[in-house]
Amino acid sequence: MANPILVEVTRGPLVESVHRGAVAIARADGSLLFSAGDIETPVFPRSSLKPIQALPMVESGAVETLGLGDEEIALACASHSGEPMHTSRVAAWLRKIGCSEEDLACGPHAVRYEPVPTEMVRHGYRPTRIHNNCSGKHTGFLTAARHWGITTDGYERLRHPVQEAVAKTLNQLAGLSGDLPWGVDGCAAPNFALPLVAFARAVARLADPASMAQPRANAINRIVRAMISHPELVAGTDRSDTVLIRACNGRAATKAGAEGVYAAIVPEAGLGIMLKIDDGAGRAAETAMAAILDKLALLGNDPAARKLVRAPVLNTRSATVGERRAAATLTGAEIEALPSRAMA
Amino acid sequence: MANPILVEVTRGPLVESVHRGAVAIARADGSLLFSAGDIETPVFPRSSLKPIQALPMVESGAVETLGLGDEEIALACASHSGEPMHTSRVAAWLRKIGCSEEDLACGPHAVRYEPVPTEMVRHGYRPTRIHNNCSGKHTGFLTAARHWGITTDGYERLRHPVQEAVAKTLNQLAGLSGDLPWGVDGCAAPNFALPLVAFARAVARLADPASMAQPRANAINRIVRAMISHPELVAGTDRSDTVLIRACNGRAATKAGAEGVYAAIVPEAGLGIMLKIDDGAGRAAETAMAAILDKLALLGNDPAARKLVRAPVLNTRSATVGERRAAATLTGAEIEALPSRAMA
Repeated sequence: MANPILVEVTRGPLVESVHRGAVAIARADGSLLFSAGDIETPVFPRSSLKPIQALPMVESGAVETLGLGDEEIALACASHSGEPMHTSRVAAWLRKIGCSEEDLACGPHAVRYEPVPTEMVRHGYRPTRIHNNCSGKHTGFLTAARHWGITTDGYERLRHPVQEAVAKTLNQLAGLSGDLPWGVDGCAAPNFALPLVAFARAVARLADPASMAQPRANAINRIVRAMISHPELVAGTDRSDTVLIRACNGRAATKAGAEGVYAAIVPEAGLGIMLKIDDGAGRAAETAMAAILDKLALLGNDPAARKLVRAPVLNTRSATVGERRAAATLTGAEIEALPSRAMA
Repeated sequence: MANPILVEVTRGPLVESVHRGAVAIARADGSLLFSAGDIETPVFPRSSLKPIQALPMVESGAVETLGLGDEEIALACASHSGEPMHTSRVAAWLRKIGCSEEDLACGPHAVRYEPVPTEMVRHGYRPTRIHNNCSGKHTGFLTAARHWGITTDGYERLRHPVQEAVAKTLNQLAGLSGDLPWGVDGCAAPNFALPLVAFARAVARLADPASMAQPRANAINRIVRAMISHPELVAGTDRSDTVLIRACNGRAATKAGAEGVYAAIVPEAGLGIMLKIDDGAGRAAETAMAAILDKLALLGNDPAARKLVRAPVLNTRSATVGERRAAATLTGAEIEALPSRAMA
């Protein structure tokens, strides 16, 4: 059976396009607050996996011994826009751990978010690996390897200890065991597939790590705090994660991923949210996540966030000719405004 | 009921994203060679409407009296990339009809296709309305108004004679009557919605206009010939229409539109093809259309076209990490390799 429609895009009097998908909102004990669609088929969490990919580094103690801080942790969780605030920090971090751009396994890619690409062309700069939106994640992998005193060569390969630590951590948080199916992410690192609901449960344990051993719980709390404290580093100017984390005002951290996935961590309610748009559209994932956070009464009246909940479709003369909005599956969902953690 | 999956995108061992949609392949007599999904719901043909939007101009005789040719007709049907070959011709055409960029109702938009935007920044140029991918269509509208000796002011409004002529022509070709639902397109011109199957029938009458009065049939044949003769003007370097028209080697003209629509005109078989991807994804529309043309044995071994039929998904290091391909609804469809027109 097809997944339900989560987002609609209108033009004039008609719905022009629709986006189907699945959503799971889980608690750390594995129970579900809400779900829609097929939540059992494995999905690649793509960049929504980054907070978990950062966990081995933070748990290792590398942050303390190498003199790093919340900014670097936020960048390890980031799909950043390659703005100077991102690239200067990643470059300094690489120097701090005795590495350079050459050590990054991610390829360079053009920065998409203006005015960065225009400024780069104007000044004759070409994108480097540091501009890759995942350069913070990769620098985090290098940091863990450095701290463990092992080779950084091939740190992006499935059988390197850093990636084995990521896979093990993901399995533990998701309550799974065994080898997960995997594919190569856009940045050349392995990405692991798991049922949407299992990933939502892993995210819920980031929201509510109380039942875990102290070092892991502390590392998780530090990661979530770093994301919430540095929304501009997690994505960038006008990007959805930056907008949503700011709008949630300390109450949630979000992390988008390619191909229409979106995760959110809601510590005060101990909730992990995960959604996947079937067709991979980022525009729909943004609007679906914004609508869910709004349903949970987390967004408030932040104008930038409200424009994700109901996004005007503009033409080239900046006239509004339609809108992108959550469909009834989400707007009519029986989700209470932020249930307290005690209710779980 | 949900439309069938037309295109799949894989990563590693899994299908990561899917695109649903509907397809109709019609003959000029209205009969169907093939259909999949819901073909009755109205869709906006968006830029796939351009060959029909160009018809009033060509039918009017303006091409002859104003000294225009196949290049201008191809540009009237184009969603061009704003390359110098496009913008220089549109600018010259505007001068020829005594108009200027100021007369175009479409807004400027950034050119997306490299190296155009990089070259523009390097030379300090800003996008103008002539760079709008629809500037040829708009210049065609202005040309019709000039030829008719009526005001060009407000030529983009629903009640201007040029747009009324477009709506009437579309109704006639589609075998419909009455006011069609409409919305404002990205370029500020009206776009009319009609059932997918009705639009496929209209496209079939572009492929096989024999039953129509001579002036219209001649104008249609000229438009199709212009598109086939100038594939580089219909889209641009490495764009799907340019690739597909070239690969079809004179046997078909194609026209993509925003929000995942794609039309094709196949004169030798008298077929009109129209498809709409539910979620609006251009990547899926390209691959679905390429797969259908391949099924009709029109594509041959053209390498660029084959890369649309099965498109590698690359990461930032240019490694292949998945593929985009047509799903069984299309690959398994019982469509014979190009039925002759006589079979209809």
